[in-house]
Amino acid sequence: MHVMITGAAGMLGRRLAECVAGDGGIDGVGVDRLTLVDVVPATVPAGFEGEADVEVADMSQVGAAERLVAMRPDTIIHLAAIVSGEAEADFEKGYRINLDGTRALFEAIRLAGDDYRPRVVFASSIAVFGAPFPDKIGDEFFRTPLTSYGTQKAICELLLSDYSRRGFFDGIGIRLPTICIRPGKPNKAASGFFSNILREPLSDREAVLPVDEDVRHWFASPRAAVNFLLQAASMDTRQLGNRRNLSLPGVSATVGEEIEALRAVAGDRATQLIRREPDATIKAIVAGWPRNFDTARAESLGFKAENSMADIIRAHVEDELDGNIPG
Amino acid sequence: MHVMITGAAGMLGRRLAECVAGDGGIDGVGVDRLTLVDVVPATVPAGFEGEADVEVADMSQVGAAERLVAMRPDTIIHLAAIVSGEAEADFEKGYRINLDGTRALFEAIRLAGDDYRPRVVFASSIAVFGAPFPDKIGDEFFRTPLTSYGTQKAICELLLSDYSRRGFFDGIGIRLPTICIRPGKPNKAASGFFSNILREPLSDREAVLPVDEDVRHWFASPRAAVNFLLQAASMDTRQLGNRRNLSLPGVSATVGEEIEALRAVAGDRATQLIRREPDATIKAIVAGWPRNFDTARAESLGFKAENSMADIIRAHVEDELDGNIPG
Repeated sequence: MHVMITGAAGMLGRRLAECVAGDGGIDGVGVDRLTLVDVVPATVPAGFEGEADVEVADMSQVGAAERLVAMRPDTIIHLAAIVSGEAEADFEKGYRINLDGTRALFEAIRLAGDDYRPRVVFASSIAVFGAPFPDKIGDEFFRTPLTSYGTQKAICELLLSDYSRRGFFDGIGIRLPTICIRPGKPNKAASGFFSNILREPLSDREAVLPVDEDVRHWFASPRAAVNFLLQAASMDTRQLGNRRNLSLPGVSATVGEEIEALRAVAGDRATQLIRREPDATIKAIVAGWPRNFDTARAESLGFKAENSMADIIRAHVEDELDGNIPG
Repeated sequence: MHVMITGAAGMLGRRLAECVAGDGGIDGVGVDRLTLVDVVPATVPAGFEGEADVEVADMSQVGAAERLVAMRPDTIIHLAAIVSGEAEADFEKGYRINLDGTRALFEAIRLAGDDYRPRVVFASSIAVFGAPFPDKIGDEFFRTPLTSYGTQKAICELLLSDYSRRGFFDGIGIRLPTICIRPGKPNKAASGFFSNILREPLSDREAVLPVDEDVRHWFASPRAAVNFLLQAASMDTRQLGNRRNLSLPGVSATVGEEIEALRAVAGDRATQLIRREPDATIKAIVAGWPRNFDTARAESLGFKAENSMADIIRAHVEDELDGNIPG
């Protein structure tokens, strides 16, 4: 099987490529060709013995999507996007990369001809929803995004459904929860603290908490997110009918519950490394974010996330810290 | 006030232009300039004494939207679109006219600068919804269109919300019920029979009914639709917050109820002109259409439709037949 990953140099893209390149391939089907696309060169997973192409491309540029689609991948996992903060700061860039780039990919597939009909997995986001919310956002709740990023993702979901219904490709859109614990250094994303307050203390470093402990949000580990993408790439999409976009399972937890889970896994010494520094701007942004979901549909299709914040922390300790907690 | 109407040569556009050109203007504010845009020349309402421009333009062509927006209308009522059947038959034309044309208009406004921030009224459609439905489609039900036309309208709704949120214009999208009684000759639209079986007998002509009498659908008169557009053009949009797209009130009625209302208004002689000719294709198409809505939000904002199918028929008799029923 030939798998193409866009956004392959990103955090999820790298992990996904490593999984796909492994013996298990995708749901047991071996991957003998891997095309890794990003605006910077992606890394071919060590030990991969199939054919690997590293493509530096921006799908929103004329001809880029056509050139990539001409390679006829069986499965395209489309992660490439600029993030919420950047799409809000640069209106034109957000629409160009997140909407026009995705539409160019879809159009290139439609126009490829030759009965070409790949599986297309689109990484959508819970940012397609905008406050006010019910306590749990159900599968039939409407999309009223409050960011340009969320608008772009919601539009791509609609395009994916229509292109699938018309038979141009076999698409599935999955709304990933906020990834936690996001590995790497603290960044300036408004959502960064949700990960920072766990990741940093687990490595014996201080972290800043800008919101109150009763703030609730929706999480899944990087490991769960990769599993979601693999399942979306291999599942029987006839089960989806014409409703091809799904909110995925996650863990709903407050910041206080995050801290208690950290204490349970790593003790008081870890939680004492969290420094409270209230930030009104971040509080206001986070107040508009989803807190909890009812993901009955995705669960009935077999999608599974962690059961608790402690499980999410343990996944990080296993995947990033070789099982070791310092101190 | 300077009002621009796109799709001004269409059935609703013509009626809207006549209303706007009248003494009442829009909610009592006089209209001294009227720009009528369509791909064929629209007709300036008789007796209009302000400045009138008839513009033959296709907004999806490069430069067309910029040229129109440079006229700086205070209010833009955007009706231009190709219909559902054509958008389904010609994929590229549908996306070009219904999506790219609308986006070009929105972009031209965004880029106009000079604190230009017009009211934009977008005529959306109940085709943004796709079966299966609840008994009544509520204000927070999700959009899963089953046609490319519905997809294009749903995408434009999302763009309208985001452009309004960012302050580029002051937009409102209204989902019009199926217009009934649609004046003019019977056409081949799958929905045509809903109007044909009333309009033709009211003028002493035979009409064909291709579906069963228990088929239920959602209707408003041309008069109600024009009133919706006028209200959307003048209302205080602060009441909408960031949720700028609305399902509008209508009458939910079965074909059998249509026929009974026809009998009540025009007698047995009229209903005997309806000839049953079952058509499996039309039955299948209509089976996926919305049947009923809960439009609490639009009603709380003061939008009003007819109360019954008999009222809809009487509106047609008054507006199209000078109050006369033949026979």
